[in-house]
Amino acid sequence: MASNTAGKVIKCRAPVCWGPNKGQTIVEIEVDPPQHEEVRVKIAANGVCRSDAHHLDGDSCDVNLKYPLILGHEASGVVESVGPGVTSVAPGDHVILLYCPQCLPGRECERCASPKTNACVNDNFNTTSTMRDGTSRFRHNGQTIYHYCGISTFSEYTVAREAQVAKVDPKAPLDLISLIGCCLGQGFGGAQHMAGVTPGSSCAIWGLGAIGLATALGCKDAGAKRIIAIDTNPDKFEFAKQFGCTEFLNPKDLDIPVQQYFQNQGGVDYTFECVGGNQMVTLRAAFESLAPWGTCIFSGVTKAHVELSIKPNMFLDGRTIRGSTYGGLKSRTGVQKLVNKFMAGDFPLEPFVTGRYAIDDIPKCFDLLRQGKACRSIIIYN
Amino acid sequence: MASNTAGKVIKCRAPVCWGPNKGQTIVEIEVDPPQHEEVRVKIAANGVCRSDAHHLDGDSCDVNLKYPLILGHEASGVVESVGPGVTSVAPGDHVILLYCPQCLPGRECERCASPKTNACVNDNFNTTSTMRDGTSRFRHNGQTIYHYCGISTFSEYTVAREAQVAKVDPKAPLDLISLIGCCLGQGFGGAQHMAGVTPGSSCAIWGLGAIGLATALGCKDAGAKRIIAIDTNPDKFEFAKQFGCTEFLNPKDLDIPVQQYFQNQGGVDYTFECVGGNQMVTLRAAFESLAPWGTCIFSGVTKAHVELSIKPNMFLDGRTIRGSTYGGLKSRTGVQKLVNKFMAGDFPLEPFVTGRYAIDDIPKCFDLLRQGKACRSIIIYN
Repeated sequence: MASNTAGKVIKCRAPVCWGPNKGQTIVEIEVDPPQHEEVRVKIAANGVCRSDAHHLDGDSCDVNLKYPLILGHEASGVVESVGPGVTSVAPGDHVILLYCPQCLPGRECERCASPKTNACVNDNFNTTSTMRDGTSRFRHNGQTIYHYCGISTFSEYTVAREAQVAKVDPKAPLDLISLIGCCLGQGFGGAQHMAGVTPGSSCAIWGLGAIGLATALGCKDAGAKRIIAIDTNPDKFEFAKQFGCTEFLNPKDLDIPVQQYFQNQGGVDYTFECVGGNQMVTLRAAFESLAPWGTCIFSGVTKAHVELSIKPNMFLDGRTIRGSTYGGLKSRTGVQKLVNKFMAGDFPLEPFVTGRYAIDDIPKCFDLLRQGKACRSIIIYN
Repeated sequence: MASNTAGKVIKCRAPVCWGPNKGQTIVEIEVDPPQHEEVRVKIAANGVCRSDAHHLDGDSCDVNLKYPLILGHEASGVVESVGPGVTSVAPGDHVILLYCPQCLPGRECERCASPKTNACVNDNFNTTSTMRDGTSRFRHNGQTIYHYCGISTFSEYTVAREAQVAKVDPKAPLDLISLIGCCLGQGFGGAQHMAGVTPGSSCAIWGLGAIGLATALGCKDAGAKRIIAIDTNPDKFEFAKQFGCTEFLNPKDLDIPVQQYFQNQGGVDYTFECVGGNQMVTLRAAFESLAPWGTCIFSGVTKAHVELSIKPNMFLDGRTIRGSTYGGLKSRTGVQKLVNKFMAGDFPLEPFVTGRYAIDDIPKCFDLLRQGKACRSIIIYN
């Protein structure tokens, strides 16, 4: 499919984040054509994720980001044009953007060639703000605008390395599958790839945001018997039933610490911390709620420089703590498998969506997220 | 084999620990005959392990121990007599005592029947000081003397539950295989069962005591390429070569933190903290030295109430921390497999032994351990 914009600068709109605590405004930007092994994508839909809010609010884990930049990392789109050397996608292909790269077959780095990690050598999650040649593809009134995670998906058009796009089934609904780019993979992969949830097991999930609910879907799909949803906001419990949660617990309703509640039952097989932020109380509770053989998965991104205090002797019975980026899944192949599982009806995505919005609503959507009033707001692009 | 002491009280010698920081003296005690599903064992050899020193020195993790008691948990012996219901051993059998129980086949608790844990429901590691009926089999001048880990192996004769003895190959040398009862299993199992060390991998071990060196043997047997021995006492490095260590590092020789040294190389696949005690610096260094996919094993027993501070965001690349008791191995079957591997020549035990001593030397052996002058002192019983 030919594109009449190929090779040309595209003018479009994007929310530019001017710096930590300096706000985000939707402005017109220029997007350069894709260079060698790069792809330009017309974004279709973008989920509003809390990790982006950390950067807006000055809580970034990373001190190396350059501002102004364009946020966004959970999105689907259609390839507009491709640069030289691109072989895995062509204009018109439906894609999901990948905040973790996965090298293309035959061009793998040592890590992408290994089954033991999804952390590509060229991973630029939170660590660089440019394309690999050190330059940006975005400008606003002549000023350089930087990239985020190499994908900056809040823009109407973006440029990403080929290693950061996954071609997906064109029959899949672009609005819903945007969620597979971040929360669905982090939660589902955390349950199945990192924890290895087994049939008949007990699982406890702290935090009923999108990652926590995606974790519940992964636990359910793996055959867990008990899926215990834990949140201090009981308004979320009825909602969480749609994701397979079987029990609901508000720690404020207990007169003992939640870890003691679970230890009185012998402990839980798998626990998942999906709160994020300054979650030291919940991280500790999730670890200390484990049965002696249990595995605790840290799925929430903490704020910068946070430290967690734990009792090392609690490991000695056989307990495990693990964490992951994108649920430990190789990003491209992981996204493709999850899209296929969704299309096969193995799990729903519509229940995550608490609203569909336009690009101008992005600041409002972050406010809804901060207020706990949204699970996933999806920005729909024209 | 009939025993002319069966059914009678046996008088013998044992070191009695009178309480934390109250010393340990070798006195004559009376040992009752074994009751239902109990076994009386004449101890052959006993390794002097640092975990016992924690109790002598008032650093016990456990506040429920009753004193006076008899320590010792790394030992071999010969069955003297058995109580009613015992089926797996008979008088004359060579055994290793098990500080973690493993229920007998056909009589398993739900945990012993499951592959996911070695923490038997009846585990009494550090938590009870009597046999299961609430009484003791030891007396001194009419005073009750309590048990430790259910095995109290420093006594010339001891009584243990059948679930806490493993029958082993009678051709195996009883002095050396005593070490399989604790340090060898904790280290070897930590490397192979808990970490799952893979061929060609890199391993770093903090602390070159017996557990650290047993870990090196496990890494070598698993085919690790690099086995990096880390200790602040460089006198141990030449000694550590016998256990397969390939590199030697004294953190005091670096002008950067040891974790930075390893991160500059991309990180280590597997790290093992085998120092024990107040090892917060080494626990943290072991975790922070990991490659993004790496696994850190906490093998050292910390002092009571110690807390470790770590950065939870370091898990998000895919890092793992695990710990174990007895290397995660089911105790009886684990001991039996390790004795068979030793007899097959897969690993040596003699290099651990820095001296053979008599029962009267036990206090001196603890002093040697505290001073870092002993790897394993073995007490040989007549």
